[in-house]
Amino acid sequence: MFQCIGYAATDAEARLAPFTFERRDPGPNDVEIEILFCGVCHSDLHQVRNEWQNTLYPCVPGHEIVGRVTRVGSAVTTFKAGDLAGVGCMVDSCRECDSCREGLEQYCVPGFTLTYNSPDKAGAGHTFGGYSSHVVVDRHFVLRIPDNLDLAAAAPLLCAGITTYSPLRHWKVGPGQKVGIAGLGGLGHMGVKLAHAMGARVVVLTTSASKEADARRLGADEILVMRNPEAVAKHAESFDFILDTIAAEHDINVYLGLLRRDATLVQVGAPEKPLALNVFSLLLRRRNFAGSIIGGIAETQEMLDFCGAHGITADIEMIRMDEIEAAYQRMAKSDVKYRFVIDMATLQRPT
Amino acid sequence: MFQCIGYAATDAEARLAPFTFERRDPGPNDVEIEILFCGVCHSDLHQVRNEWQNTLYPCVPGHEIVGRVTRVGSAVTTFKAGDLAGVGCMVDSCRECDSCREGLEQYCVPGFTLTYNSPDKAGAGHTFGGYSSHVVVDRHFVLRIPDNLDLAAAAPLLCAGITTYSPLRHWKVGPGQKVGIAGLGGLGHMGVKLAHAMGARVVVLTTSASKEADARRLGADEILVMRNPEAVAKHAESFDFILDTIAAEHDINVYLGLLRRDATLVQVGAPEKPLALNVFSLLLRRRNFAGSIIGGIAETQEMLDFCGAHGITADIEMIRMDEIEAAYQRMAKSDVKYRFVIDMATLQRPT
Repeated sequence: MFQCIGYAATDAEARLAPFTFERRDPGPNDVEIEILFCGVCHSDLHQVRNEWQNTLYPCVPGHEIVGRVTRVGSAVTTFKAGDLAGVGCMVDSCRECDSCREGLEQYCVPGFTLTYNSPDKAGAGHTFGGYSSHVVVDRHFVLRIPDNLDLAAAAPLLCAGITTYSPLRHWKVGPGQKVGIAGLGGLGHMGVKLAHAMGARVVVLTTSASKEADARRLGADEILVMRNPEAVAKHAESFDFILDTIAAEHDINVYLGLLRRDATLVQVGAPEKPLALNVFSLLLRRRNFAGSIIGGIAETQEMLDFCGAHGITADIEMIRMDEIEAAYQRMAKSDVKYRFVIDMATLQRPT
Repeated sequence: MFQCIGYAATDAEARLAPFTFERRDPGPNDVEIEILFCGVCHSDLHQVRNEWQNTLYPCVPGHEIVGRVTRVGSAVTTFKAGDLAGVGCMVDSCRECDSCREGLEQYCVPGFTLTYNSPDKAGAGHTFGGYSSHVVVDRHFVLRIPDNLDLAAAAPLLCAGITTYSPLRHWKVGPGQKVGIAGLGGLGHMGVKLAHAMGARVVVLTTSASKEADARRLGADEILVMRNPEAVAKHAESFDFILDTIAAEHDINVYLGLLRRDATLVQVGAPEKPLALNVFSLLLRRRNFAGSIIGGIAETQEMLDFCGAHGITADIEMIRMDEIEAAYQRMAKSDVKYRFVIDMATLQRPT
C-alpha cells in the first residue's frame, strides 16, 4: 500500500476537504497513474450529496481521469512509466457475462465496479476516484490518450465523450442524416462535436435562442428553439436521430414528434422524475425511445482515437482543487462552458 | 350510387341503430364486397362514443371486414365476383410519400383514409365502415382471405391480427427467442398465436393467474403473473422482445425491466393517460421502447397467408347485429373471449 492524497466528503452535509488514504501497490495486471487532471461530472455532485441515497463515505469523486503512468505490474506490456493514460467510469467488471464478453462492460450483468463509490474487489472498503493524487487500475480499464490532444481538455472525454459517442455509433449516425442534440451542457456540447465529426447535419435543440452562436462554433448547422411552436412544427418528423442529454424535466413527446418514422431518440441524461410519455408519440410513426450509458472499454479507446484523429476535446474551465465547492454551485445552475476540470497540481497534502 | 343498409350512431349519446345510406358504384379500380362478418374492435366503441373527440356522425363503425366480392371495376384483374375478400383499417392513402412507396401505408405522411370516420376522397361526406351490407374499396386496399380459414373467425385478423403480426415481424421474432405478450385480450390472444407460430417461446404477462389454462391453449409456454414480485424478479432481464397490448394504465417500468440488454418492448395498446417512464429502465440495459400501428397492405396479405398456412384465426363470440350495444358493454369490461364478430346476415333493413 502507499499513501495518496485527495479530496473527500465525509457525509452528505460535509464540504469536500483534503483527505489522506491508501491505495494498493500495483499488482501484476495493474497500472499506477499520477493524476494530472480530473473532469467534474454532474454525478460527482449527486454522489457527494448522497442524492441517489447510495453514497459510501468518505467519498472521493472523479471519473474523468487523465495522467501519466508511474508504475506498471509485471504482466503489463501495453503501458510503461511515462505514458499518458486515462480512466473513466469503470475500473472493473465481472468479465464473464455476455455483456463483458462482447466488450460492453458498461452493461455487465452482475454490475461493473465504479471508479468511485463501489465495493473495491481488490481490497477492503470502497473505490476512490480521481480527485486524488494517484489511481491504481487493472490494465484492461486503462485507456491510451492521443498525445496530440490538450490533456486537461481530454479528461471529460472519459465520461461526457464516451456517453455521447457510444449511442451515436450504436445507432449508426453519419453523413446524410439530420441529427438533433437536445441540451447544450457537458454532454450536449460533446454530442455536437462528435456528431458533426461523424458527418451528420447537426441541429441543437435548446430552450434558449442565446446559445446559437456557441452551438454553431461547436459544429452545429442550426439550432431549434423548443419554446417556439412554429419552429418546432417546421422540423416535425424530420430527424433521423436525437440524442437527448437533458437531465431536467422536459416534455419528451415534443422531442419524439421531431423524429421521422422508425427513427430513435436516445436518452443519456437522467431526469430525476419519470417522464410522462404519450404512447401515440411512438405509435404513429413506429418511433423508438431508448437509453444508453457510457460505453465499453474498447469503444472508449475507439472514441479517444477518433477524437485524436479529429482534434476533438471538451471546452473546459480549469479550476483549482480548492475551488470545487464553488464549481459545484455553478454547475448546479448550468453555469459552466462546458466542463470544469481540476488541475491536480493544485492538490495539497492535508495540513 | 346504390343503397346500403347498416348500423350507425347519430351522436355520442345515441345507441347504434339501423341506418340506410348510399355507396358509390364500383369505379374502374374498385371492388364491391357483400359483407358477411365484421369484427368488433375496441376502437369502434371509442369512436361511436366520441371518446377521441373526432367522430364524424352518422358513424358506421367496423374495420375487420370479410365478405364476398359482388362486382369489380373494369381495371380489376385480381378479384372477381364470388371471391372471398377482406378490408381492414385503411381504404386509401396518398400513395406518393416515402411510407406509401415502401408499402407502409399505415404511416402515410399526409395520413391514410380510415375505413370509417375519414373524409371520403372518392365522394362527399365521410367513410362508412363494416357494420353494413356492402363496402366499395379500391383494389389496392382489398385483401385475399385464405379459403381454408373459418370466415367469421378470420375477420379479426384484419385489425387485431395485423396489429400484432407487424411488430413481431419488424422486430424479427423467431425461434430461440423468449417473447412476452402483455395482456390477453383481442390483440394479446392473437399475439400469442402468432408469436408461437413464428417459433418463439411465448410467455403471457398478465395480472390474472386464472388465465393460465387459456394462455397455454392459445400457444403460450408459460404465464408470468405480474402481481407476483418474486415471479417477476425471476424473469428479470430475460426477454428478447415484449409486445404490450395493454390499453389500461400499468407500470411500464416493471415490464421494461423484463427485457434483456438491447431488447425492445413495443406498445400496440393505447393507454389514454401518459405512461410514467423512469428513464433508468431504458438506460441501464440500453433498452428500446417503441410503438407500432396495424401494418401495410402487403404485410397484411402476408399475415393472412401466414394464418392460412398455420390455420390461425381469432377466438370469437358471434353476435347478431342488434346485440352490438350489449357486446360493447361486455367489451368495456374485457368480458369477451376474445373478439366479438357480427354475423351480418342478421342485419335488417330499417323499418
